[in-house]
Amino acid sequence: MDFVSQYKGQVDLALEKFFTAKMRGKTGIEKEAVSKLREFTMRGGKRIRPLFMILGYWLGSDIDGKIVDASVSLELMQSYLLIHDDIIDQSEVRRGGPTFHRMFGYDERVNEGVSIVCADLSDAYSHEALLEIGFTSDRLNRAMKLMSEIVEQTGVGQLMDITLSLGDDITPDDVTAIHKYKTAQYTVNGPMKMGAILGGYSSPETIDDYGIPLGIAFQIQDDILGMFGNEKELGKSVVSDFEEGKKTHLVLYTYEMAEKTEVRFIKERLGKKAISNDDFQRVKEIVENCGALERARSLSEKYYDQAISTIDKLTDSAPQRDQLKIMADLMVKRVR
Amino acid sequence: MDFVSQYKGQVDLALEKFFTAKMRGKTGIEKEAVSKLREFTMRGGKRIRPLFMILGYWLGSDIDGKIVDASVSLELMQSYLLIHDDIIDQSEVRRGGPTFHRMFGYDERVNEGVSIVCADLSDAYSHEALLEIGFTSDRLNRAMKLMSEIVEQTGVGQLMDITLSLGDDITPDDVTAIHKYKTAQYTVNGPMKMGAILGGYSSPETIDDYGIPLGIAFQIQDDILGMFGNEKELGKSVVSDFEEGKKTHLVLYTYEMAEKTEVRFIKERLGKKAISNDDFQRVKEIVENCGALERARSLSEKYYDQAISTIDKLTDSAPQRDQLKIMADLMVKRVR
Repeated sequence: MDFVSQYKGQVDLALEKFFTAKMRGKTGIEKEAVSKLREFTMRGGKRIRPLFMILGYWLGSDIDGKIVDASVSLELMQSYLLIHDDIIDQSEVRRGGPTFHRMFGYDERVNEGVSIVCADLSDAYSHEALLEIGFTSDRLNRAMKLMSEIVEQTGVGQLMDITLSLGDDITPDDVTAIHKYKTAQYTVNGPMKMGAILGGYSSPETIDDYGIPLGIAFQIQDDILGMFGNEKELGKSVVSDFEEGKKTHLVLYTYEMAEKTEVRFIKERLGKKAISNDDFQRVKEIVENCGALERARSLSEKYYDQAISTIDKLTDSAPQRDQLKIMADLMVKRVR
Repeated sequence: MDFVSQYKGQVDLALEKFFTAKMRGKTGIEKEAVSKLREFTMRGGKRIRPLFMILGYWLGSDIDGKIVDASVSLELMQSYLLIHDDIIDQSEVRRGGPTFHRMFGYDERVNEGVSIVCADLSDAYSHEALLEIGFTSDRLNRAMKLMSEIVEQTGVGQLMDITLSLGDDITPDDVTAIHKYKTAQYTVNGPMKMGAILGGYSSPETIDDYGIPLGIAFQIQDDILGMFGNEKELGKSVVSDFEEGKKTHLVLYTYEMAEKTEVRFIKERLGKKAISNDDFQRVKEIVENCGALERARSLSEKYYDQAISTIDKLTDSAPQRDQLKIMADLMVKRVR
């Protein structure tokens, strides 16, 4: 079995094991909270962060059950941050089902309040999961510190995202910076470095040259899929990014490159609910015809190439190099 | 100088030092976030959790600068949880100033969204603060694990609080259980045990017999002050607990002990905004005259006595015993 299928399966099993242990002896609202966190966490997700953590570990050690168990912490952290994100964005669909705060039957404010706290529980779990594995204390402390830095940087990216999106002066470079903080560090680089630290890899900081550009490339590509992708594969509506008013590279490039009337057409509709099918088709045509789509794809490609070019510096092992390449392709090349 | 004044001052200095370092090189929204977290965290607070952590440390080691620096983590955790709490409860005043989500000038949903994320930043800081001190890795890991358990139990208490308060069938014992999870563990017992672990104290688990009952006694007393206390000392409105619909021991005892018409008078007003002065005076008279006030005071007293009776088992040192007694008095006896 290939790396991704094999370890994705193992991570899912380790997550099930974690939640089964957590459920034991629980009653009342705590039981409901754990059970909903389990459902939400297990429902979907490509386990990208665990896979990068395991890959980072492999740079320093043979892959074993310990790193699979440890990687559970990243999915618990992911649930923590996704739940908060979805409340902030008032999103309704996630991973092909309701967002977490739509899984409760209280009134809206109570649903959100309960969900904020359940997310905080998942945060506590993420630390517990990592602390329980039995790594040497020194490596564990360095990994814990990095995990807190990841949460911090993700938060900073999220703040930039929320506040810069409010104004009209956000630039493509701002968007790249947000991708760096909110995605690259959080999804690729941080998890891989945590794994590398736990595995005793000699120079975890060199991973930055692979992880940061790959994460940026991935997010640009993800934004492209968020407009031009397939709803079934995405697990969310293909208009939701647009209706949320997300100012992606695609959108900002179109503002620069399209005709004035076309730009006005988009500005009048971005961030408004219930765009018609015809109007959304027109938006996509404008983005594609003015060259913004191709330009965003090239930017993603540029960062992808940058990541690929550093693989040989990370390791001498041929199978590891192959896997670093496969992961990069998986992240960025999905629709090409 | 006495223990409390001395170390409260040192904790404030250590917090200032932490935030000054955190501000360095920050720009834009991140700078604003750190600066508002600093203002919110420094504005008030009695530094109870740091003081209990330092006291726990003292059971195993001489007090030093390391434990003062480490105790900063608890105030950062406190800001994290308070910010979320105040959003959930829609509170407007905290520590004699606006709640965190009222410190921003965006529209309401953005204020709340930004504040949820700033709280998460403070959570990350709380871990970083503890990890940076240079305790031995083994003690540090045990303390970190306990810190996550504290956040977890506080969350469970908060969930019980939110959901049980919605119904009519909450009992005084439920309220005591919520106090145990949400306050006793979080405010007294957890911090003190964390300190004891960091200080190398031989049997941290014996602290439960002091910390849990003292925390419960404190919270019952705090609920009493929340109705019968002095607004200036509280730093919040004396009607706010009542207007939020908080079902305290006072309220539930009154439901049991007062006349039917009096109970109706209270039920018709509990949880509603803008109660008149006269009506609130009448509420207080009912609670006092039916014996509910005295009964709640006795319950607090019972738990206080339980805590006091275990002091001698915790330590042979006379000054430590004295301080454990002083802290208990400070927590519970404030208005007697």
